[in-house]
Amino acid sequence: MSRFWSPIVDTLRPYTPGEQPREGGLIKLNTNENPYGPSPLALEAIRNETGNGLRLYPDPEATELRAAIAASLGLKADHIHAGNGSDEILAQAFLAFFCGKRPVVFPDITYSFYKTYCALYAVEAETVPLDETFRCDPQDYRRPCGGVLIANPNAPTGIALPLEGVEEILRQNPDAVVLVDEAYVDFGAESAAVLVPRYDNLLVVQTFSKSRSLAGLRVGFAIGQPQLIEALRRVKDSFNSYPLDRLALAGAKAAWQDRDWFERTRQRVMVDRDRTAEGLKAQGFDVLPSAANFLFAAHEGFAAERLWKGLREQGILVRHFSQDRIRNRLRISVGTTAECDALLAATGTLLNK
Amino acid sequence: MSRFWSPIVDTLRPYTPGEQPREGGLIKLNTNENPYGPSPLALEAIRNETGNGLRLYPDPEATELRAAIAASLGLKADHIHAGNGSDEILAQAFLAFFCGKRPVVFPDITYSFYKTYCALYAVEAETVPLDETFRCDPQDYRRPCGGVLIANPNAPTGIALPLEGVEEILRQNPDAVVLVDEAYVDFGAESAAVLVPRYDNLLVVQTFSKSRSLAGLRVGFAIGQPQLIEALRRVKDSFNSYPLDRLALAGAKAAWQDRDWFERTRQRVMVDRDRTAEGLKAQGFDVLPSAANFLFAAHEGFAAERLWKGLREQGILVRHFSQDRIRNRLRISVGTTAECDALLAATGTLLNK
Repeated sequence: MSRFWSPIVDTLRPYTPGEQPREGGLIKLNTNENPYGPSPLALEAIRNETGNGLRLYPDPEATELRAAIAASLGLKADHIHAGNGSDEILAQAFLAFFCGKRPVVFPDITYSFYKTYCALYAVEAETVPLDETFRCDPQDYRRPCGGVLIANPNAPTGIALPLEGVEEILRQNPDAVVLVDEAYVDFGAESAAVLVPRYDNLLVVQTFSKSRSLAGLRVGFAIGQPQLIEALRRVKDSFNSYPLDRLALAGAKAAWQDRDWFERTRQRVMVDRDRTAEGLKAQGFDVLPSAANFLFAAHEGFAAERLWKGLREQGILVRHFSQDRIRNRLRISVGTTAECDALLAATGTLLNK
Repeated sequence: MSRFWSPIVDTLRPYTPGEQPREGGLIKLNTNENPYGPSPLALEAIRNETGNGLRLYPDPEATELRAAIAASLGLKADHIHAGNGSDEILAQAFLAFFCGKRPVVFPDITYSFYKTYCALYAVEAETVPLDETFRCDPQDYRRPCGGVLIANPNAPTGIALPLEGVEEILRQNPDAVVLVDEAYVDFGAESAAVLVPRYDNLLVVQTFSKSRSLAGLRVGFAIGQPQLIEALRRVKDSFNSYPLDRLALAGAKAAWQDRDWFERTRQRVMVDRDRTAEGLKAQGFDVLPSAANFLFAAHEGFAAERLWKGLREQGILVRHFSQDRIRNRLRISVGTTAECDALLAATGTLLNK
């Protein structure tokens, strides 16, 4: 530790994102990207914005994007907050709602960035074990706390919590913000956005990275009642007034409005997910029921880390986590039909070696 | 204040960016944007990146951009940190270097976001008055402190501190980080980047928003020795792994490498700045000597706020600050030659009314 560092720097637990390989030719099933590319209308909107106008600051309020999202949800723009990916919004939400309070509660197996935020803001984390089938029991969240974090569908399990379960957690914690992280919701779970008008403690967070295939553009948003959105705005304007550039604002708005592309591509991902899950099961894998664009699979006869390495050698990247309870599993993003086939062929080969 | 808010939210002092008008036809001289548009090579690089590749996450390390910047400065990539505009980097630097320490010191008249960061991180601010000519005396920064912030050229004064002055502050504070915010440096000041190899307490922050005319793309960077850069990286990876999207990374790299466009446009801005300053002086304005892309001017016979309103009525936006010591001044960004002429004509008309 350098004498120049703030004391907190040494206590940080920086998040390690999945590998972004610089070499080409790999089948990249390790960071849950969408195989189908963004809406052509989004690309066109970005091209139209690529000109001298980039000399000007973007709209710090993301007015048009927020209005577009709000309109399709039957809400107002002051129910929507936009940010540089949903990670930035999670970071803002921790500061806005969880600092200087009781511990925040989240499952033992979930998005690992939550612990990073706890370290960043000196918020105590209280983890609740998922049951032995990796399911979340809403009853476990009936406890005094400073806030609740639920990824729905959960990551890396892919398992969805039904809307009644989310609502149960909301009812049990009327004085704490319940943040529902819906990064993967469009691949088969029910969004809690419909509950926003009825629960002032609900913040739903979504992203353009997965179902809108814009991981490279960095856009996320939150949905909540205006007093929650106002806190996020204050935090944003105390950190960086313009986290969304002009190209991201234009591209995201167009992607949001292209419902047809969104529907077609997410359906294809879901079809290939279910087919790949069946294929893996036929090879002896235990595959959790996924409502996301990835599968979480284990094989009794083959250590996950060995499988991970074997796939890497065949040019297929998947994600392996070292956390105890899940170290025998691999998280496999759903690729194109051909990529899913290549994966099944590769696992088949490895298992038969 | 909502019962859901963290206690700190109520103590934040959100920054208010300059107006970004939604109506067209205005002459916008209020947020120090560059009138000449970005490098055509930057626009081409963005267009080339606008495709299916946006489905993939960007490089979280901004490897190519950092290498390009480092190469031209005779440094290594581990001397460079990239972020979503220099504001984000300032926010990261406050957390990385100034938290839980003695007060940070900066001039009474400077970029107002510094106070916002102090509130965000509960860092005490100790302001040092500029002298009566709005100059910074390095001797004033010889004091025990947790860090020093120097905008060079300063904003909104536009006055530059010579490199010897910066070096004096660095020598006087060997155990505190001296952050030199060089947002406007390319319009006539000397960059402290050349001092980085010799001072382990120096962090230089620059932006693509002004001299590279990419305010709409949100890219900034810091230059410092690796132990400072490492702290910024840890903070970034505890907040948001990918603050720079693929289009921003590609556009910034190309803009950085187009030295010719950079030189030509900044020279034009400087020529028009000096000419406009002379024109304003001829109208009786007191104009501070500017090394930036804006002028800071006062007129004895005309209250700045009245002038600001009068210009607004004529479709010309400039910036007025309500802070006591500078409420009689206007900050006027340097526009195109024609825009500068329009400004001079408008002030002439108002003064003769």
